[in-house]
Amino acid sequence: MHGEIITIGNELTSGRTVDLNSCYAARRLTAAGLEVTRIISVGDDSQLAAKFLKRAVTRSGFVIVTGGLGSTDDDITRVIAAESLKRTLRPNEQLLEKIRAYANARKIEVTPSLEKMAWLPEGSKLLSPEGRVCGFSLVERGVCLYFLPGVPDQMQLLMDEVVIPEVLSHCKGIPFTGQRILKVYGLSESAIVEIFKLYQGKREGVEFGFYPHFPENHITITLKGTQKLKVTTELDRIESELTHLFGVHIFATGNLTIEDVTGLLLVEKDLTLSVAESCTGGLVGHRLTNVSGSSKYFQGGVVVYSNRSKVDLLNVRQETLDRYGAVSDKTAREMARGVRERLKTDLGLAITGIAGPDGGSHEKPVGTVYIGLADGTDIFWGKYRFWGDRHKVKLNASVMALDWVRRYLNGDPFLPGV
Amino acid sequence: MHGEIITIGNELTSGRTVDLNSCYAARRLTAAGLEVTRIISVGDDSQLAAKFLKRAVTRSGFVIVTGGLGSTDDDITRVIAAESLKRTLRPNEQLLEKIRAYANARKIEVTPSLEKMAWLPEGSKLLSPEGRVCGFSLVERGVCLYFLPGVPDQMQLLMDEVVIPEVLSHCKGIPFTGQRILKVYGLSESAIVEIFKLYQGKREGVEFGFYPHFPENHITITLKGTQKLKVTTELDRIESELTHLFGVHIFATGNLTIEDVTGLLLVEKDLTLSVAESCTGGLVGHRLTNVSGSSKYFQGGVVVYSNRSKVDLLNVRQETLDRYGAVSDKTAREMARGVRERLKTDLGLAITGIAGPDGGSHEKPVGTVYIGLADGTDIFWGKYRFWGDRHKVKLNASVMALDWVRRYLNGDPFLPGV
Repeated sequence: MHGEIITIGNELTSGRTVDLNSCYAARRLTAAGLEVTRIISVGDDSQLAAKFLKRAVTRSGFVIVTGGLGSTDDDITRVIAAESLKRTLRPNEQLLEKIRAYANARKIEVTPSLEKMAWLPEGSKLLSPEGRVCGFSLVERGVCLYFLPGVPDQMQLLMDEVVIPEVLSHCKGIPFTGQRILKVYGLSESAIVEIFKLYQGKREGVEFGFYPHFPENHITITLKGTQKLKVTTELDRIESELTHLFGVHIFATGNLTIEDVTGLLLVEKDLTLSVAESCTGGLVGHRLTNVSGSSKYFQGGVVVYSNRSKVDLLNVRQETLDRYGAVSDKTAREMARGVRERLKTDLGLAITGIAGPDGGSHEKPVGTVYIGLADGTDIFWGKYRFWGDRHKVKLNASVMALDWVRRYLNGDPFLPGV
Repeated sequence: MHGEIITIGNELTSGRTVDLNSCYAARRLTAAGLEVTRIISVGDDSQLAAKFLKRAVTRSGFVIVTGGLGSTDDDITRVIAAESLKRTLRPNEQLLEKIRAYANARKIEVTPSLEKMAWLPEGSKLLSPEGRVCGFSLVERGVCLYFLPGVPDQMQLLMDEVVIPEVLSHCKGIPFTGQRILKVYGLSESAIVEIFKLYQGKREGVEFGFYPHFPENHITITLKGTQKLKVTTELDRIESELTHLFGVHIFATGNLTIEDVTGLLLVEKDLTLSVAESCTGGLVGHRLTNVSGSSKYFQGGVVVYSNRSKVDLLNVRQETLDRYGAVSDKTAREMARGVRERLKTDLGLAITGIAGPDGGSHEKPVGTVYIGLADGTDIFWGKYRFWGDRHKVKLNASVMALDWVRRYLNGDPFLPGV
């Protein structure tokens, strides 16, 4: 069972607004085992929009349309629906009542443009007869059409509570679709492709997808079948085979992030962490604290952007800075030890490097980053070379630093450096 | 002159990725005075994508295609282009050289899947022969087709530097279009609309656009004309009138960010800054250090996520924490003073608050944030209430903190709090 999404509005084709609605609808439909073949955005051009709507009815099982249900002149979706499906617009008494009640409560005059919102194509059904939110559905030649408001939270509410269950009940007997996501760090896209070639042929009917999510790579495994249990079992098997194949390079599955996984491991092992950041400037702390409940294990950190602050806050020795430089394994190690002692945590993590575009040298080019990790017994360190602009170097360094903690806690070897 | 955008990838039709590329392309094309009639996203379905490409050539002046230029099996755009336009795929020697050099520099093996990236439809022109970035163009029956990588910064670079100028030069006789962007913080959308109502009617032929960019609001001013000088002069006048109208709420123009503006002011006044972050967890330091050259004025900071770290690192008094709590004006002030003294900077900035979803109370609900700013003479503070999830509270608090520094340096009053 496949369908399509049509979003209407000049704000989309002029790039003023990111089309988050179609993304949300596509995500929910896919997660429910339905397939979206295309997403089409058109401006407030009734002829063009009507053309797309007419075509959609001839080829799709369901159609989701968002936007253009309001009261202003460019809210043309009702008219487009009526014209393209050759249905008359008639006032919906239930909706008219709601609009009048809404206006009265706010002491707004019930203008013709407000009333216009209640004129729906013949045969329309209100999606939320009780609620405040507008939106209607139609069935045309067996195809379900849903017309949703463009306001994101209204659209999302109707999508989850009405559209998904209805589409699913219309599609009995459709095969169940399951999906898994594996997140990989530390392997290039081409290295992943090569590893995959060894595997891919083995599983018929399974669809593998890749996409880079800098600096990570994500692998999706999609499988369709008539029985949910069978699909799930098969996906479990594939996931475990791939996990075996890619080993520790898979840092997370599903929607988990590297900071989620690191946090879960710290909680599990009942350990605390502090961070000393130079080139990442606070990004590692920011990521760690994006996780709700991170105060359980994250005590805090220091951003030591100047040499003086490295000495003052972390007791990095001036001699180390003079002799080896701020970007060196010696400094990374002293930072890791310093922050661990200063914040009295189990683990101290340090990042120092050259984010660029300036500051590089032949010996230490832009993108050179040292990671240090102190646990009270040992101080580990690694040297890496990242590519790309300032933003990418910071991003890559932050993931590498968090990945160090993950690998340390799992007892896995760190990624080899340069 | 109108055109369309086609984006290819299962990550789009499955809702895994928000299609930021088409939004960016649409915004830039619109700003350049070109019209985008439709944006179409399809999955990695070569038949369907080829159909859209064939149709596009029959009706549009230009076509922008993004995604599917990488080295994995689902990177099918080259093949789609070749098949739908009936052109043979041939290796492009220039691109092949670039790929080999890239692989050698990184000590990666030049695999067949990497080499595949250099096979382009006959008649293709590389968009960036000198640069690192892939992408090619074709002319088919007078229609310009551009194939851009899906990686956002590469796509944006090619869009700005190659595609827009080329499309414009293909469309001689179109009027010159100028655009300005004004960035506003601290006014609600409806407050901006009200202020605008006083102004909007005054300028004929000028198009005003408005889009929220949480927690900022951006205003665009677009003007077309036949003479560049006339358009520029008129835009200068409008920009200065609006700047007068919105006053200090406009924090930046064009592509500048709040951290850029704050940094420029610190350089101009030759002052240094340090930051003590609690609820923002390092985000303010991260933003400050996104600016190249920020080490000139940003000495560093501390992320004091626990009470103990506030005492240990910043000399916040235990009594203050016990009596007033970590989220209080007293604590914010002691943090600001502490970090300024600890890092020996001219200014000390502090942020403490409740990002949520837990930790709120009736008296101090989630979203309560205190800002402190110490300059050696005074310690200023403010209390704010932000709305939204953890991510939004952190983001809003980081902009507010940077805006405090900007306003302080400009001698402007701080935004009123609660």
